[in-house]
Order: sequence, then C-alpha cells, then structure tokens
Amino acid sequence: MTQPTDDELARLAQQLRVDSIRVAAAAGSGHPTSSMSAAELMAVLLGRHMRHDFGRPEHPGNDRFILSKGHASPLLYASYKALGLIDDDELRTFRALGSRLEGHPTPRTLPWVEVATGSLGQGLPVGVGMALAGKRLERVGYRVWVMCGDSELAEGSVWEAVEHAGHEHLDNLTALVDVNRLGQRGPTRHGHDLDAYARRLQAFGWHTVECDGHDVHEVDRALAEARSTLGQPTAVLARTLKGKGVAAAEDREGLHGKPLKNPEEAIAELGGVSDLRVEVQQPPAARVLHAVHSGHLDLPRYEKGEEVATRSAYGQALTALGAARGDVVALDGEVSDSTKAELFGKEHPERFFECYIAEQQLVAAAVGMAARGFTPYASSFAAFLTRAHDFVRMAAVSGANINLVGSHAGVAIGQDGPSQMGLEDLAMFRSVHESTVLYPCDGNQTAQLVAELAERPGIGYLRTTRGATPVLYGPDESFPIGGSKVLRSSDKDRVTLVAAGATVREALDAADQLAEIGIACRVIDLYSVKPVDTTTLRAAAEQTGCLLTVEDHRPEGGIGDAVLEAFADGRPVPRFVRLAVRHMPGSAKPAEQLRSAGIDAAAVAAAVRLLVETAVVR
Amino acid sequence: MTQPTDDELARLAQQLRVDSIRVAAAAGSGHPTSSMSAAELMAVLLGRHMRHDFGRPEHPGNDRFILSKGHASPLLYASYKALGLIDDDELRTFRALGSRLEGHPTPRTLPWVEVATGSLGQGLPVGVGMALAGKRLERVGYRVWVMCGDSELAEGSVWEAVEHAGHEHLDNLTALVDVNRLGQRGPTRHGHDLDAYARRLQAFGWHTVECDGHDVHEVDRALAEARSTLGQPTAVLARTLKGKGVAAAEDREGLHGKPLKNPEEAIAELGGVSDLRVEVQQPPAARVLHAVHSGHLDLPRYEKGEEVATRSAYGQALTALGAARGDVVALDGEVSDSTKAELFGKEHPERFFECYIAEQQLVAAAVGMAARGFTPYASSFAAFLTRAHDFVRMAAVSGANINLVGSHAGVAIGQDGPSQMGLEDLAMFRSVHESTVLYPCDGNQTAQLVAELAERPGIGYLRTTRGATPVLYGPDESFPIGGSKVLRSSDKDRVTLVAAGATVREALDAADQLAEIGIACRVIDLYSVKPVDTTTLRAAAEQTGCLLTVEDHRPEGGIGDAVLEAFADGRPVPRFVRLAVRHMPGSAKPAEQLRSAGIDAAAVAAAVRLLVETAVVR
Repeated sequence: MTQPTDDELARLAQQLRVDSIRVAAAAGSGHPTSSMSAAELMAVLLGRHMRHDFGRPEHPGNDRFILSKGHASPLLYASYKALGLIDDDELRTFRALGSRLEGHPTPRTLPWVEVATGSLGQGLPVGVGMALAGKRLERVGYRVWVMCGDSELAEGSVWEAVEHAGHEHLDNLTALVDVNRLGQRGPTRHGHDLDAYARRLQAFGWHTVECDGHDVHEVDRALAEARSTLGQPTAVLARTLKGKGVAAAEDREGLHGKPLKNPEEAIAELGGVSDLRVEVQQPPAARVLHAVHSGHLDLPRYEKGEEVATRSAYGQALTALGAARGDVVALDGEVSDSTKAELFGKEHPERFFECYIAEQQLVAAAVGMAARGFTPYASSFAAFLTRAHDFVRMAAVSGANINLVGSHAGVAIGQDGPSQMGLEDLAMFRSVHESTVLYPCDGNQTAQLVAELAERPGIGYLRTTRGATPVLYGPDESFPIGGSKVLRSSDKDRVTLVAAGATVREALDAADQLAEIGIACRVIDLYSVKPVDTTTLRAAAEQTGCLLTVEDHRPEGGIGDAVLEAFADGRPVPRFVRLAVRHMPGSAKPAEQLRSAGIDAAAVAAAVRLLVETAVVR
Repeated sequence: MTQPTDDELARLAQQLRVDSIRVAAAAGSGHPTSSMSAAELMAVLLGRHMRHDFGRPEHPGNDRFILSKGHASPLLYASYKALGLIDDDELRTFRALGSRLEGHPTPRTLPWVEVATGSLGQGLPVGVGMALAGKRLERVGYRVWVMCGDSELAEGSVWEAVEHAGHEHLDNLTALVDVNRLGQRGPTRHGHDLDAYARRLQAFGWHTVECDGHDVHEVDRALAEARSTLGQPTAVLARTLKGKGVAAAEDREGLHGKPLKNPEEAIAELGGVSDLRVEVQQPPAARVLHAVHSGHLDLPRYEKGEEVATRSAYGQALTALGAARGDVVALDGEVSDSTKAELFGKEHPERFFECYIAEQQLVAAAVGMAARGFTPYASSFAAFLTRAHDFVRMAAVSGANINLVGSHAGVAIGQDGPSQMGLEDLAMFRSVHESTVLYPCDGNQTAQLVAELAERPGIGYLRTTRGATPVLYGPDESFPIGGSKVLRSSDKDRVTLVAAGATVREALDAADQLAEIGIACRVIDLYSVKPVDTTTLRAAAEQTGCLLTVEDHRPEGGIGDAVLEAFADGRPVPRFVRLAVRHMPGSAKPAEQLRSAGIDAAAVAAAVRLLVETAVVR
C-alpha cells in the first residue's frame, strides 16, 4: 500500500498484531501483548509519517526509528515483513539459535536497527544523541522517532533525556509513548492518566499530544502535529490496551512476556493471517553524510623530564584530533574543567556537547552520535562513569564505537576522598565485551592512545590521572594498543613489577631502591590493560618467575587480573603478588594516599624484599 | 542561641561562611563558595526547624539531614562546630590525613552523617528511602531534610526520587535546593529561573516554595510552609549566590572547589571569626526504634533430586526470613514476578516496596532504610543492577548494610538475549569494597545464603538463575559465607573443576563423562565468590596442580579471578584454565546458549581432555 487509507492502516495494524502473535507462538516466548498495544502507532508511522529508504540504511536523509521498548520486537519484525525486508519464513525464526530476529533487536544482526534496546529507558537518551547529531552536526532534516513504553518512563535516564531534548529544542525528536497501563508485574504508577505524563513532559519544555492509540485517524493527527511542531520535541501520548484486539488478552494482567494461550483463536479474532505490504515514503534528497575533514594530526608533544597530568594531555590531544578529523565530537558531564575536555570545547565549540551532570545521557548521546557515524569521546570522572554502566553494557550489545574517558582515577586524586575516586572503573570496563581499556602514565603516551582510540572499534576506555606525572617517553614513541613498555630489564631480574598510570613512577622508584640493595627488577608499563600484552608478560614470567602488580584500583578486576589473563590457558603460571587499594580511603594528600593504600614505591620495595628474604623468589 | 532571632540567625550564617572559608584555606582545597550559598538555609534549618538530639543520634524521633551536595562539607562541619559537636581545632583538620572531616561527609567517621555523599544526585533518592521508612515502617513523625544543589537536579536519579516521593505523598520529606546558578564549570541549564524547577517538581506532585535564600525571614517562612504541607513532599527553591558575602567570589565563575584567594580579607568582609552556638530543638518523645519481631526461622526445604529455580528459592526464603524478622524489608524494580520477590510482597505487603523501573531509586531506598536500621533485600535482573552501580559504590563508602539480589544471570536465561543477561554483575559486585558475593546452585543453598546475608555487614549480593536446577544438597546442610563445597574428590584427581550457580551441574556432568574415560576430576562448588575459600582452593591446587573454572559470566572479574585471589600472595600458582562467556550471545534456548558460550559439560570435558592429552596436567 502506498498512501494508505485509514482503513488500510487499520488492517495493517491487525496484521502486525497477528504476526506478533504468530512469532511468539512459534518461539514459545516473547512479548506479543506489548506489541499489540502499539500496532496502530507503528502502522501509521510507517504508512504516513516516516521517511526512510530501507534499501539504503546509510541514506543521510533517512528518518531514524528506535524501539525503546525493545521487548516489543515481534511488532518490529512483523513490520519488517510488511515492509518486504524479511519473508514469512525468516519471521518465524524469531528467537531461534542463529536467527537475526533476537528477543530484543540489535544492529549486530539487522541493518535497520539503529541501536540495541531491551534495557528500558535507553531509547530516548540515545534518540537525543541522534537528534543532536541531526540538528547540530549533519544538519539534515531527518526526524528521530522513539517508541517508548509507559513503564520505562520511571527510569531517571528518560528524564535526563527529556530535560536535554527540551533544553536543546529538539523538534526533530518525537517520542511515541505506548501508554498501555500495564508493566511487567502489574499496573504502572499512572495507569491511563495521560495527563500525568503530559504535565511532566510539558514542564520540561515538551509539546504533548494525547490520542486514542487504537484510532488510526487520531494517531495520524498526533504524528502530523509532532512533525509540524517547531522549537520543541513532541511526545505523542497514546492511550492503548495491552493485548488489544484479543478478548482473552486485552488489558489483562499477568500476560506480560508470554505467548497467547490460543494463538489460532486469537488470530481468527483479529481477522486471520494477511500479507499486506506497506511502502514508506522516501527521504528527500540530502547531501551525503557529514564530510570528515581530514587534516594533519598534530598531537601535543611533551619533553622528557617535564611533568604533565595525563588529563591535560587528553584534553590537548583530543583538541588536536578534532582539528584533524571532523568526525570527532566531545561530550562532557559538566566537569570539562576537570577532565580537560574544555580545551576541545574552546577550539571546536560546534562539536562539543555539554550534557550536564547526567552521565547516562552523556554516554547515550555518544552512542547516538556513533550510530550516525561520528567518533565520540565522552568524559567525566572515572568514578561517575559507573552511573552509566548499563548504557556501556548495552552499547557493547549494539557494537557501538564510542570512547569514554575517566579522569581522577584512584586514590591519587588526594583530598577529595573516596566518593570522587575511580577505584572500580577498570573492573567495570574490562568486563564489557570487546572493550579496549587503556591507562597511560605520561603525556606522550596519552596523546598517542587518544588518537589510536579513534580508529579502534567497540567501547574504548581511557583512564587519566589528576596530578602531574613525569614524562617518561619521547613524543615520537609509539604505543600500540595491546602492547606494553619494558622500562627496566636485565638478565638478573628476580621479580617483574607491573604497573600502569599513577603507579608506574612508584614501580620505577621501587626498582631503583631495590637495585641499590642488589635486587634487580624488571618493570613493565602495562598501559594497555585490555587487550593485554601476553607476549611480554609471558616472557617476563619465564625469565623472572614472579610478577608483582601494583595498581591504584580495587584488587578485583583491574591490572592484576588483566595480567593473569595471559596465563589462563593451562600454561605454567608465575608466582604472583598483587598490591592494590584494599582499604576505604579517607582524605589525604596524594602521596599520603598512595602510602596508606600500600601502593607506593616503599610498599612495592618492601613486598619485593619480603619475597626475596623468604626465598619466594630466586 | 536558643529560639534565635532573625538577626542572630543571619549572624550564624555569616559564621558558617567564615568557618567554611577558614577550613578550606587551612586544607588548601575544598568548596567554600558552594558552602557560602547555603549558609542561611543551614542556619535557619538548625535554629528553627530541625528537631534532633545530637547527643543521641539513634533517637527514633530525630529529624534526618542529608547533605546531598556533599562537596559543601565545610558548611556541614562549620555547623557541627556551631552545634558544639566538634571544636575549632578539629574543624581545622578538614581534609587532613586521619581527620574525621573528609572532603565529602561519611558516616564511617561521623555519627551525625546519615549517608555518604559526594556523588551528586544521590541524597534525595536515599532521603526517599528514609522518608518511606518513617512513614510506612517506623511510623514516627520525623522529617527528612535533604539539601540539594541545583546542578545535581540534572541527574536522572533525582527524578526517580521526585516521582517516587510525589507518588507516595511523602510529606515528611523536604528538599532544600540551593539554587546558586553555577555548577562546576559554569552556569547551570536554568540559572536562577526558580520557576523552571518549580514547574518540573509540581508536575510530579510536589509542593514548591520559592524564596530568597539569603533572607533569613523568607527562608524561615519557606521551611515552615514545608513542615505544614500535608500530602505532598515540598521543595524549597532558594535563590542564592555562590560565594555569597565576599565580593571577590560572589556569583563568579571559575571558583568552584577552590579556597578563596584572600581568606583573611574575606573573613573580615564577613565580620570576622565568631563562636556562636546554636541549639537544635529536641525531638518529641517517640517510641523506640521499630521492634524486631524475632520469630522462628522456617526456611523452605527442598528434596534432593527435585528441580527448583534458585530465584524461586530466594523468594520463598526471603518470605520466611520476613516472617522471622520484622526488620527485613523487600524492594522491587517492577520485576518481582521474575525475581520472585513477589512472594514476600504477598506475605508481608507492609514491608514490600515497589520502586518500579528505577534501579537507582531501588538501591537508594535500600540504603535509606538500612540507615534506619532495617535489613533490605532489593532485587531486579542482575543485568539491570548495573544501572545502580554508582549507588552501590557509594553505599560501600557509607558502610551501608544492604542486600541486592540479581536474577536472570548469564546466558542460561535463554531466548531473551544479551540485553537481559547479567554477564558483568560478578565483576561489578566483587570490585565493591568489603562486598559479599554469593552465587548458589540449588534451592537449599540459596535459602541458607539468603538467611546468612541478613547477618552479614556491608554490601551483599546474591546471584540467582532463571531456570530450574537440580537440588544437590540436603535442606540441613550448612553453607558458611567464605566456604565452598567439594562435590567430587579422590586421590587421583588430575584437574579441579571450579563452578558456581548454573555451571555446577555442567561441571558435575563433565566430571562424570571424564571419569568414564579414566580422568578423575575434583569438583568444587564455589558458592561464595567473595570472600573465596582459599583453604579449599589451595589444597585442590596442591593436590591436582591445575584448576579449571567455568562460569556463566564474562571472563573478566568473575569466578576465575575470584579463584586466583587465593594465590596472589607469592605462593606457587597452579596451572589455570578459564571457561567463560567470550562471545556476544544471541537468542537461543538455555542449553544452546551454554553450548555456544563453551561453558557446558561438553566444553568442560573437551578442555580437560585437551589438557590431559597435551600433557599439561599429569
């Protein structure tokens, strides 16, 4: 159907319901009732309002659609069938091993999915990132449609997004809220009180339209109003019924996430199986995706012996990277004076995005911009990136290419105390699928790694230090991801000290102290925490027999564990000692903190002496 | 001063400013300007409205105060001096090594601090937990006062709290919002537009009062209005100036988190040092803290050979625990039908708290209730607890005693796909300071561990499995935290298989298959992931020489790393092989998922055969 009538759209909606029921029945699981409530919203969106060339997902003028309520994937896949993107055979592979049609949609398997959903409350924040890209970077007139559930509006991340979109006047963003009254375990807070949602959204500067979500004409009017509203994002609040159209399921509790009991009867009740096709309007001609201005990369250079904070090197390197590459964008969580992202902001204000103290929105905006082809660097304190853990996890499910930078890592920050200390960030980022985790110790290393992250797929994490550290490397040294640097080495090394970031200087000082009493130590700067340099670590293990790791992080999940990854295949494992932050720090000066935590040079030297004196090491 | 006049309160406010400047100057760091904006709010609160016996922090009638903008700690400590709780000498230890007066306040060191703050946007959600405890559990008339910054209102967690408090009509909760217009790096989104905040809060059902935050009379009127408002929480929106009272600092950018440049001049400008004392009104006589009904604990019992999901055992055990102990409360993130916390809700509805899909508020409410002496169990999907990572981290800084339960762990959930799979939760919870991490494999073990967590201090985490697993242990077996169970053992064991939860059955099956071809394996059920049973692991290492871990989790930070903790002190380390989820799973049935991930019995058996055939193991 092209330019479908209301009646045709109503029949399309019934087909989407029928197919949702069919796929869930075939799979023996899934969320048909959550799909059925939104069938008219989807039918009208596709038939009348969305502009998208499904044959060219990369078309710059394409509208974007995010199914924030990702569990309604049957509806999405039923739509793909109606769009002619998949056939009925494939549709029925839903949730089977090897199928592209997973329980929750993901761009890993489907070219039409913008971003993985399934953890609720993430679609709108990511949509904000896309809408920002459309308005401020690409300047193409595409619209971002986000279909939300009502339950997920309880997530704070949604309100971070609502605030951000309202404040930025993102009139290219529309939230389609399927207010079906029922969450997973029962009624939502506000039931069918559309006004309750409208009041909240309006207070944040949104335009709202309420409608009967099962009346094609009303939905059409609402979506048209959204498209014609200028200066504000619009939320279409659609009153719907979960399980709509099947008496045994409609508006009933206890049926969330379950196939219908009598699918054949239900399908008959809905008018039977059909094979309607819908055509989506083509997007207008649009210029190709934002030009990537490729200029010369002129990274900052620091002289050996200088002292520079790696956070400053990050800010300077990112600024240089931004000058060389037009696709690089920076996002801040209202701490850019601390993370030093402000340097980028001053140089490239058009590509700098202030997300205020809203780390979930910060990461989500990065994900949205990455989906539009940009290369985002989002930074905050390492400690506060824990706020966005679930978004990082989901970004990995999406296969998103984003870089996150956490400053003020570890006890080395000093007096501010434990609330501000990133002590769990390495564990968090290492556990993310196919992540890259980097922890530089000097300015030149930081600069190189910032640039390398731009080319690295997946989730990149760079950990920076608050205080100044000595420049150990020349500005032309290279630091490949997956590598390490051997800073001290001899045939007589009895222990290998493995450090990164703030503890590299401590390890070097300890090695010097130990050399004075005749104990030779190898020192490895493990700047690439993941992937880890197994070759160098294994050689050190063979040659010295004992590894001692020292890290400004909790004992769990950080550098010590990264080192042991090199020996997790059954080969002989060296003796191993781990120095890490095992107490709860208070306030103190940086050097005092390192001492209290037992991760300073003295602690390293004492540990090695103990190993030697007790003949643990040769 | 008792019953102070407006003029006396104004002078008290000046003293609080002066002392804030003094402590930051002494420390060489800290946030005097953020303290100065809120001086009148604090002076009026203490002098006229708060009811608290500081000599008896445990008094059940005490009002509660949370400094959500924890960086304004100079103001708090200056108030402690004015209250006579600390002397001027101690005040000047601010931020020094060993001082109780840390950069951000924590109950670890100070009896008057309810909860650690410093990560913004957490005070109000925790305050909601306390206010809920006051209203629904203790039923004492105390009031919860939360002092917020304006910047932190950008955090989604604040809006989870605002929604929760509005919906629950928490008229015993007051937010004092210090709208000083300036965040860390510059102006906030809304500057001094108090109406912008008022509109948002009112839309969520809050009463709001706007006032000049430097006019003692206006502040007094606003706080009185908050106290007399029934059926709604109140937000006092105070228009203030950062650095108020010192011309060189007042309302100026770039001075966040910095001592004043000329403290002596500033102090003179404010009228000099003074030593006013303020007395807070006593709370009314109130009955002692909620009685803990200690009854007989009648845990569920499962018979060997039965199959039961550990999530069901959790729900049943928690219900039994709730019958035995009146201090046990359960909190749900709108998935209680999945986590099985709903069983508790049916049996003990008065102690069951629905937090909807708002995991930050879920954990924060638990923290607030724990601060009031309750023993909370908060549950959601393991995957979604990542949403609350920063709250868990801060709960550890507080030393809070809370238990979190994550269901639907790992690929074993099956078809729903990676968005719903907890695959990073062990890494996240292990890295939390002094946490306890448990992962039971059968119903009886689960029941015992649920009960043990109630007695365990700190952050407890229990990981449950969606599908049914065989009951391996009798109902009277004990499972001490820090222990493990050796399920197969002989003198001829060539490898030790270490598993927990969903993979225990796989390890046992593999051991049986391997026994058939003459390869004896030890099998350890590592139900206590942290603390880990070093004695048993070390013995197994000595006796078998090789450990193989198999876990339904990412390779980083989980069971494999927990096992290696037992060998991180320089002793000989056994050979080690780690089987974990290294790919990105899609949708498939549970058994298919375990197979795809290479963590089923066949994968374990194949790995062991390879070790034997390549002579890696004896």
